[in-house]
This record gives sequence, C-alpha cells and structure tokens, in this order.
Amino acid sequence: MMRNESIPAAKEPKTAKGEATRRAILAAAEMVIGRLGFNEASIGEITRVARVAQGTFYIYFKSKDEIFSELVAEMGRSLRHEISMATHGIADRLTAEREGLRAFLTFVAAHPELYRIVQEAQFVDPEAYRAYFRTFANGYRHGLAEAVKVGEIRPGDAEIRAWALMGIARSLGERAVIFGENTTIDDVVQSAHDLIVHGLKR
Amino acid sequence: MMRNESIPAAKEPKTAKGEATRRAILAAAEMVIGRLGFNEASIGEITRVARVAQGTFYIYFKSKDEIFSELVAEMGRSLRHEISMATHGIADRLTAEREGLRAFLTFVAAHPELYRIVQEAQFVDPEAYRAYFRTFANGYRHGLAEAVKVGEIRPGDAEIRAWALMGIARSLGERAVIFGENTTIDDVVQSAHDLIVHGLKR
Repeated sequence: MMRNESIPAAKEPKTAKGEATRRAILAAAEMVIGRLGFNEASIGEITRVARVAQGTFYIYFKSKDEIFSELVAEMGRSLRHEISMATHGIADRLTAEREGLRAFLTFVAAHPELYRIVQEAQFVDPEAYRAYFRTFANGYRHGLAEAVKVGEIRPGDAEIRAWALMGIARSLGERAVIFGENTTIDDVVQSAHDLIVHGLKR
Repeated sequence: MMRNESIPAAKEPKTAKGEATRRAILAAAEMVIGRLGFNEASIGEITRVARVAQGTFYIYFKSKDEIFSELVAEMGRSLRHEISMATHGIADRLTAEREGLRAFLTFVAAHPELYRIVQEAQFVDPEAYRAYFRTFANGYRHGLAEAVKVGEIRPGDAEIRAWALMGIARSLGERAVIFGENTTIDDVVQSAHDLIVHGLKR
C-alpha cells in the first residue's frame, strides 16, 4: 500500500492546463475518498466528479494508492501554505499563533473531508500519515525555538510545545467538522488563544 | 455497522468468573483488532488469543461489530477511571491537570493499540468514536467550569478549553505511541504542564 520513497511522486504536469487537470482530479479525489472512504472510492468515480476521461487519470497518477498518498501530501502542503500566508509579516510569535490557528480552522472548514482522509491515511498509508504530522511538527518546533531565542515567548521545550499546540488546533478543528459544533471560528480562536498565551493560572 | 442505541450493550456477566472471561476476551480483542485492524481481525483469532472456545465469545458478545463498539467504550471507561484515580483527592485544579495528563500518558503507554482502535472507530462505528470524545469533553468541561467558579483557574470558556486540553493530551500520547518518540513521560508532563499553566507569554 505504501508508496516506496524511492519512486518519484506523481508526474509533474508541464503546462498550466495540465496542472489545472491534475488539481481537478485531486479535488475530486478529496471529495470522493473523503465521502466514501478509500476502499469504496473508485478511480471511475473520481474521474466522473472531475469531469475527465478515465484514461486521463493515468497521465497524472499511477493508481488509487498513489493519488491517495499525493492527496494527503497535497492537503498538508496547502494547509501549511495557508498558515504561512496568514502569518507572513507578523513580527511577534503570539499574534502569529493566533492568526495561524485562525487560518487552520478556516482551511479545515473549507475542507471538511480533511480529517477523514488524514485519519484514514493511518491505515491506508501510515508513512504518509506520519510525514503529514512530522512535517508540521518540524516547522512548528523551529518557529517556537526561534521565538524563544529572540525573547518573544517564555523559554520551554519547543518539541513538546509544538505537539501540544498542534494537538489544540487538531482537536478544535475536529470538534467543528466531525462533532458538528458550530461555535464561530472567531470565538474558538479567542478562547484558545487566551489559553495558549496566558495558561490556566490565575 | 453501528450498534443500534436501543439494543442493550454486551450482556453483563453475573459471576466473577464470567466477568474475568469477558475481560479476557476484551483484552484479546484489543490486541488482535489493534494489530490487524477491524476487517482482518476475526472472532476465531480473538478467542484463540483469549484461550477460550469460540462459542464462549457468543455468551458475551453478539458479533465482531458489538465487541468492537464495546471495546471502544470500555477503553474510554478504563482511561477515565485511571485519570479519576490519579486525580482523586487533589484539591487544586492545576495539580489535577498535571496528574491527569501523567495518568493519560501512562495508560496510553500500557495500551499502545488504543490509538489505532479509537481512530478506526471513526470508520467502523462513528457513533462510538463520537461518544468516546464527547464523554471525555463533557467531564472535562464540568471540571474546568467548577475550577473557574471556585477561583482556582482564570476565567475562560470551559468548552473550548476542554477540547484544547484533550487535544494536547491526545497529541502527546500519539507522539509517543504512533511516532515512537521516547521522551520520558515525566519530561513530557513537565513541559506540557508548564505550557498549560503559564502559557507562552513571557
């Protein structure tokens, strides 16, 4: 099931049209695999939703296994890109934490299938699952360590903090999309950020 | 797949021996389903590991679906019981948070299959999955609201805090058992508790 790390990922389309088609197929896969689950989802259904011929799928992806792995990686990249855009130019780490959380929850609301797909990766492609979180954790850890170094936040273990803060975001996103709680993103961000900045102590 | 809520759960054994057998079958199911996944796990393999006759299974559980649902519920109950024991008699909320987190991580280390089973419940029995986290969240929320009321912690939204703190524990437990990071539980608890108590602010 797992893609061998030495095999190159999906072929890179050379043209803008090719890239648009590849994105349409990935978007369709997100919807179809997210709704039906990996086993029930078929390449035929994915190409039907993407409105491309079934043969077109194979120009971009070798198999359902490959598009699934690529989908997990691509959702991770998109999410990190959104967070990066939302926090770009913000000088202080505490404000960046707040806007990063807001960008995360906004992305998750726009991609309600993210949780199901990433959770299913734990069974379908454990390596993609671990890479998804490790990549986040590594970036997060570096950012936190840097913020400690320049004195923007209190000293503390950047690795454990990174996983703790990722856990907060993941849990609050899941509360919204899997548990259907409809607290506004602004309210969630405000309450969570208050906890992240000040802690529970009086 | 989902157990109808109106059907009573597994029959309650009337004798200590019956209860011991039921527990042995559940412990075997934890190991077998955790390792093989729900689809690959068989009742034959569960009874083999539990060292009981296959027919004995049906004295306690109707089907693989039923034992899976009961396993998720039972793991939730055991975990809450451990946390409750570890925090019993601790008067202040901040210390209870620390010891609760320690108990959580200790339980998770002793039940490495917990994550796989609970995550798989999202696909096999979504209702059991949601009940697992909702039950935790409800208890957590009440505890936090009470601590605010008596002035032990800063005022703040108990619902969002409950999910945020659950997320921290879940993420740090997963880091250990799924990602194989071997920071000691004491070190993880100390760093995470510092964040929970004081936040990131200097």
